Formats: sequence, C-alpha cells, structure tokens
Amino acid sequence: METVTQTSGTKPKVVIIGGGFGGLYAAKALANQVVEVILIDRTNHHLFQPLLYQVATAGLSPGDIAQPIRHILRDAKNISVIMAGVEGIDPVAKVVRTTTRDYPYDFLIVATGARHSYFGHDDWEMFAPGLKSLPDALELRRRILLAFETAETARDESSLQAALTFVVIGAGPTGVEMAGAISELAKRTLVDDFRQIRTGHARIILLDAAPRVLPTFTPGLSKSAHEQLKQMEVEVRVGTKVLNVTGEGVQLENEFISARTVIWAAGNSASPLAKQLGGETDRQGRILVNQDLSVPGHPQIFAVGDITNFSHQTGQPLPGVAPVAMQMGAHAARNILELAQGQPSKRFKYFNKGNMATIGRNKGVADLNVIRFGGVAAWMSWLLVHLVFLVGLRNRIQVFIQWIWAYFTYARGARLIYGPFKPAVPPAEQRATNER
Amino acid sequence: METVTQTSGTKPKVVIIGGGFGGLYAAKALANQVVEVILIDRTNHHLFQPLLYQVATAGLSPGDIAQPIRHILRDAKNISVIMAGVEGIDPVAKVVRTTTRDYPYDFLIVATGARHSYFGHDDWEMFAPGLKSLPDALELRRRILLAFETAETARDESSLQAALTFVVIGAGPTGVEMAGAISELAKRTLVDDFRQIRTGHARIILLDAAPRVLPTFTPGLSKSAHEQLKQMEVEVRVGTKVLNVTGEGVQLENEFISARTVIWAAGNSASPLAKQLGGETDRQGRILVNQDLSVPGHPQIFAVGDITNFSHQTGQPLPGVAPVAMQMGAHAARNILELAQGQPSKRFKYFNKGNMATIGRNKGVADLNVIRFGGVAAWMSWLLVHLVFLVGLRNRIQVFIQWIWAYFTYARGARLIYGPFKPAVPPAEQRATNER
Repeated sequence: METVTQTSGTKPKVVIIGGGFGGLYAAKALANQVVEVILIDRTNHHLFQPLLYQVATAGLSPGDIAQPIRHILRDAKNISVIMAGVEGIDPVAKVVRTTTRDYPYDFLIVATGARHSYFGHDDWEMFAPGLKSLPDALELRRRILLAFETAETARDESSLQAALTFVVIGAGPTGVEMAGAISELAKRTLVDDFRQIRTGHARIILLDAAPRVLPTFTPGLSKSAHEQLKQMEVEVRVGTKVLNVTGEGVQLENEFISARTVIWAAGNSASPLAKQLGGETDRQGRILVNQDLSVPGHPQIFAVGDITNFSHQTGQPLPGVAPVAMQMGAHAARNILELAQGQPSKRFKYFNKGNMATIGRNKGVADLNVIRFGGVAAWMSWLLVHLVFLVGLRNRIQVFIQWIWAYFTYARGARLIYGPFKPAVPPAEQRATNER
Repeated sequence: METVTQTSGTKPKVVIIGGGFGGLYAAKALANQVVEVILIDRTNHHLFQPLLYQVATAGLSPGDIAQPIRHILRDAKNISVIMAGVEGIDPVAKVVRTTTRDYPYDFLIVATGARHSYFGHDDWEMFAPGLKSLPDALELRRRILLAFETAETARDESSLQAALTFVVIGAGPTGVEMAGAISELAKRTLVDDFRQIRTGHARIILLDAAPRVLPTFTPGLSKSAHEQLKQMEVEVRVGTKVLNVTGEGVQLENEFISARTVIWAAGNSASPLAKQLGGETDRQGRILVNQDLSVPGHPQIFAVGDITNFSHQTGQPLPGVAPVAMQMGAHAARNILELAQGQPSKRFKYFNKGNMATIGRNKGVADLNVIRFGGVAAWMSWLLVHLVFLVGLRNRIQVFIQWIWAYFTYARGARLIYGPFKPAVPPAEQRATNER
C-alpha cells in the first residue's frame, strides 16, 4: 500500500473529521505519537450517545453526557481540536475545507457518523423528530413535557387523548429505551404533579414493521423484551407499517392513531461526506470500506463508525454501535502509524463483547455471547457498563447520583422546558430558518 | 378594605402570575389553605436566578438550578399550576386571559418580575445580551465559549484580540459575578486546552457609569470588591459611560474597545403587565404599590417582587433581590387570607438579613448588618446561603458536588455549546423569528 514521503523533519499530518466514538478513539490512539493531528468537529463536545435518550426523557442534563473534545485531549500536545463545519474533502489536493480554514493532510480519518433517515419521507421529520444530537434530545424533551402541560388545559376529550398519546416508531434499542422511559415518566414520575389529568392513563405505543422488537438480538431476548415492555404498559405493535405521519398523528394500514407526540427511532443514513469520496456506498449511503478500513481508491483515507459498511467479517454489515466505532477508530489510527513508517496496514477485526439494551427500571436484555439473560441482571449490567464507559470521572459521579436518586424517588432531575410555551410543531416558515 | 363575598360553599379563587421567588413563596403560603389557587407561568420551572450566571459561564447545567413548579407544589392539592403565556388582565371582569384559557379570580398576585433594559437602546440587545432566563444564560454561554474557539482559528492579530476581549457592562452583583467567572474560565479552566492561543491573555473589562462597583453595598465593601477583581486581572473601569454597542465592540467617550463578546448587566425594566393595571409606575415601569402591597385602585390585586417599587419603608425602593420577593410573596398571600375572612390587610415590612456578592474563587463581599467582611469568609458564606436556599435536595447535592469538583480541579462541568458552529450574532432576519 501507498506510503507518504515526508520532507525531513516534518511529521505526517493526520486530520480526523468527527469527535464521536470513532474519531475520539482514533485521536486517543494517535496521542503523543510522531504525527501531527487535527480533529475537526462542528460541535465542541464529544457526546455519549447511548445515554442521549435519558436527556430526551428528562433524566439527565446535557452537561452530564457531553465533554469538550479539547478537554478530553488536553494532554495530547500533538493534537489540535478545531470547532468548524466541514464543507468538503479534496482527495487530490489532500485538503479538508472547513467554514474557517483549509487543513491539508497526509492521512485522513472520516468519522462523521449517520443521521436518522425517513426513507424518502423527509416531510415527516417535523412531526416525528429523531434522536442523534443534543438539540434533538432537547426538542424531544420539550415535546414530551409539553404534551402533559397541554393535556392539563385541554378543552375536549379528543385533544386530551391526543396529548396523552405517544407513538414511538422503530423498536430497535433507541425506540425501546424511549418507550420505556416515557412510560416511567407518565406512570410514575408525574402522577402527583397534575390536577386535571391522570398521567398514568397515557398511552405509549411502540411500532415496528419488523416482526419483533430488538431485531438485532436473538429471538429469545426479543420475546423477553416484548414481555417486559408489556409489563410497563407499553403497547407493542410489531409487523405494523407506517403509511404517513402528520401533525395529528400516525396513519397505519387499518387505523389512524391520534397523537400529539411522535418520535422517530427507525432508519439511519450515513453522513453526506460518504458520497464525496467517490467510492461505492450501500443503500443507507455508507462507504463499503476495504478490509483495513481504508476507502477504496484512497489508501490515505480511512472511514470508521456509522459511516461505514464493513461486511468482510460476517457477510453482514457490523452494527452501528459504539464498540464498533471505538475499535474501528483505534484500528485506523494504528494503520496510519504503520503506513507512516513504511509498514503495511492490517485488516480490521471486530471483537464483539456482547450486546445489551435497557428497557426501564429493573428491566433490560443482555447477550454476552456465552450467556443471555433479561430482567434485573441485564438492567444492572447495562447501568454498570454505561457508567464505566462514560467519559470523565465527574460525569460518572453526577450520573451515578442521579440514577440512585431516581431509583428511590422516581423523580427526574431535568424536567425543564427551555423558554416560553410554544406549539409542538412550529409553523413551517419558522422551522426553515432555525438551524438544527 | 374591600372584601369579596363568596357564594356559599365555594372557596375564594386566587390567581398568581409568575413562578419566580415572589409567586412561589405566595403559593407556598397559600398551600392547603381554604382558597383555590391557580399559578400561571410561561415556563414550566422555577428558576434559582442567583446561580444563573454559573449556567452562563459553564459551571452548572440548567437542570441544576431549575425545578418544575408543579413538582415543588405537588403536595398542595388546592394549587393548580398552568403553563401558559398571560395575554392580559381584566380588572373589571376579574379575569386573567392566557394563551390557553381565561382564569377568573377573586384575588390576584402579580409576580412577573423584570427584564433587563437598554435605556432606550434596544438595538444593543443583539450585540450585548443580558441574563434573566435560561435561554439568556445558554446564549451567553454559547457566545463566551465560541469566543475562545474563534480565537483558536483567528487569521490575524486584530480578530484574535477582539475574540479574546470580554466586556461586561454594569458592575452590580451580576456584572461582578460574570466578570469574575469569565476571568476564572480564561485564566484557569481553559489554559491547557488550546494549542494556538493563550487563553490567559484574555482581557475582561468591567464597565460602569457609577463611581464604584457594587453601588448598593457600602463604600468599604465596594473598595474591597474592586481590589479582589483586580487580583483576578479584571480591568475595572468605573465612571465610564457607554455611548454605543455594535457587533464590533463598545464605544466609550474617548475610546473604542474591540470585543467579540459584550454582556449586558445594567438596568432593568418591569414586566409590561405593570402598565396594564392603570396605576402609577416609576421610571423603570414598576408599580408604586400600597403599604399592604396591593395595587392602587385594585384592593384585590397585589404585586410583589421586581415588578414593584416599594418605597414606604426607607424612602428608597427596596432592591430587586430574591429575599425581598420571597417576603413580599408570603406577605401578599397572608393579606389575601385575612381579606377572605373579612379581616383588614397588613402593612409589609422587609426584614433585611444582609447582602452578599461573590466575585470568584475565595473572593466575595458580605454585609450582615452587624458585621461586614470580604474575601474567603464572604465567599464561603455566599456558597452556604445559596446552597441552603436552592430548591430541592437533589439539586443541592448536585451543585455541591460540582462546586467541590471545580474547586479542586478548576474544571467546569457544562462547557458545551448546543448544536453546530454559528456566528456570534445571527443575521437580523433570523433573530426576528426566533422567540426568546
């Protein structure tokens, strides 16, 4: 494979785009090595996405699950962190163009992830927002909390019902977590706080076109998750196709569900940077990377995490989860260090330690390859793993205290709506000018 | 004074507008009494405003200093909390009109506070935002943190200097706290995190037209505060008039200060509801209330907190601080309970326990009437009092841990900018459509 000849005395320049799990673990593997690294992200923080649903459901504050990227990497003196939007990559000139400056590279790691996708129905986004970023989470929190406020002053039975109906579309881990957390909010946290409504009467409906919840888990664990969701009074409807989403609710094949709050947890599409590199992409826009994670045709460019389709290991794409991105990021970084020394790059191999999903208090499923289990043990394993991987000791302490507190009181510490009362769905013309 | 005749069996209806210190302490005094209470606020939370500057300077998260009003009052079964915007008061029909419904009242407590005012220069707000609400605090946090990010990628010396210059206009408690906190951020918290800039070289300039900082304190304490600010490398300029504020900086009489970040901490004007009641208002738009806190001409309407000018006690208006609002709220509530029983209302008397201001780590001033002191003792007293008065045990624990953590590490737990990189001052047309 190609190596880069350096003029004497200068270190190879590595640019990393994206400060999520992939980009951050790449940067950590390059820290204090003989390379000069620039990490570019359009936000100033690394977001611990697995806990994002807890921000959306008022359990945690944004600051609890986000850390400034430059603070995480402060001891890596060979790494500069730049907050800027990337406008394009020029693989011929070997330059990354941003909103502030252009950054030349010898090696590039693209780790810009994915956003949720609406399978061609982008107009649904306004009525059924998804959950990828902190602004997304705060928007969902606003809608969920406002639904109960709206119900409290509803003038008629039908608007009361619509306000107390929550539809979650997509029964993967995010959808299951959201449905479970909204159920706890309605049926536990809020019950004493309202005078006109019974929040416990709220309907939480979890829809998926697939035949079972958590389809990436084993059928046995799906069944367990389904049972646990029913215990929490979540209405699970699998094998159910969504035909349309409007400001009034969700149209199914045989039924219209009136709902003020609809949440999108189905489908992803890769970051648009994937297309710019000219290589082959899959249906979700993901780059079909080489075995060493390089981008076909560009031996100096590596792609890691949710932007990639890596099917070499199992014949199926690796799932879009944090451990895959972390291992890919570190591997791409090690390959760059090898190439910079004239050594060949190595194949990537994902080491799968297992999968877990939480459903709610004392509820979850875990597949640790050798054993599989559901219920309280799975839930506790989930809590423990997420606490350990959360970046920053202070955040770990804060989150731990909030979880303990919530366990004993059912209270949630971040039940606030920023700013004044606004409609759930702002007028189209206003949305257009608000940058996401 | 007038009493309200009730039809038999119905309890007097009390409406409270505003869930700040005044409204909340009124509600607490009416909890589980023989009245029916509706508290209306346009947000869903009570905000502990004395710590708002710590949200603006990335020390605390919004959830740490805000609690849902209905959760605080959940055990007061005679109180309903309504999230709605108030559109007007009809004192003849005795109705409060809101964005959702109209609420009739027998007694009304108006506790809608004040916002910052620009002395007729409303166009300055875009360039020098103030600090009253959570959206204000998040906007200031965004600007302050983005200033350092912008400096890191600055292309020339003059834009670098402007990015690292912070001007705080107004040297009352809020201005002093903001200047001190930005100094700590620049000169301690951020020093290891940047590669191109020395954040310690940032200039923090505190301006006031008055001849001394903290003019509501004694001259001795003002002098102490001034000295402590100088120790923190804050440039204090008293007796300095601001002639203009633009996107480029601040125009003084003899000098233009180029600054990317300008913060407004001078001047208040009362909530516009004050004017609607037809009584006399002062230059800041505050209601000149009667001795019993009722509004002249409306014996069933009381006004409390920052919306009032109460000069009966000292000849000067009572200051716009939390203890005044708390005592006024409770007093108005007790007067309503007296009036409802056919008893006369009583004069309000403010019991002043003292004044404190914090400046920074180990720095502050305190006037406890019998003794006055500055430095570490004042700072610790300030921390203790604010921790005790903060609403909610969980919030107290969270804030306490963050303060301890910050004390030993200099780190700040909420250093995040929501969403992608945006200009400090968005284009005018975009601002117009974004509700504050």
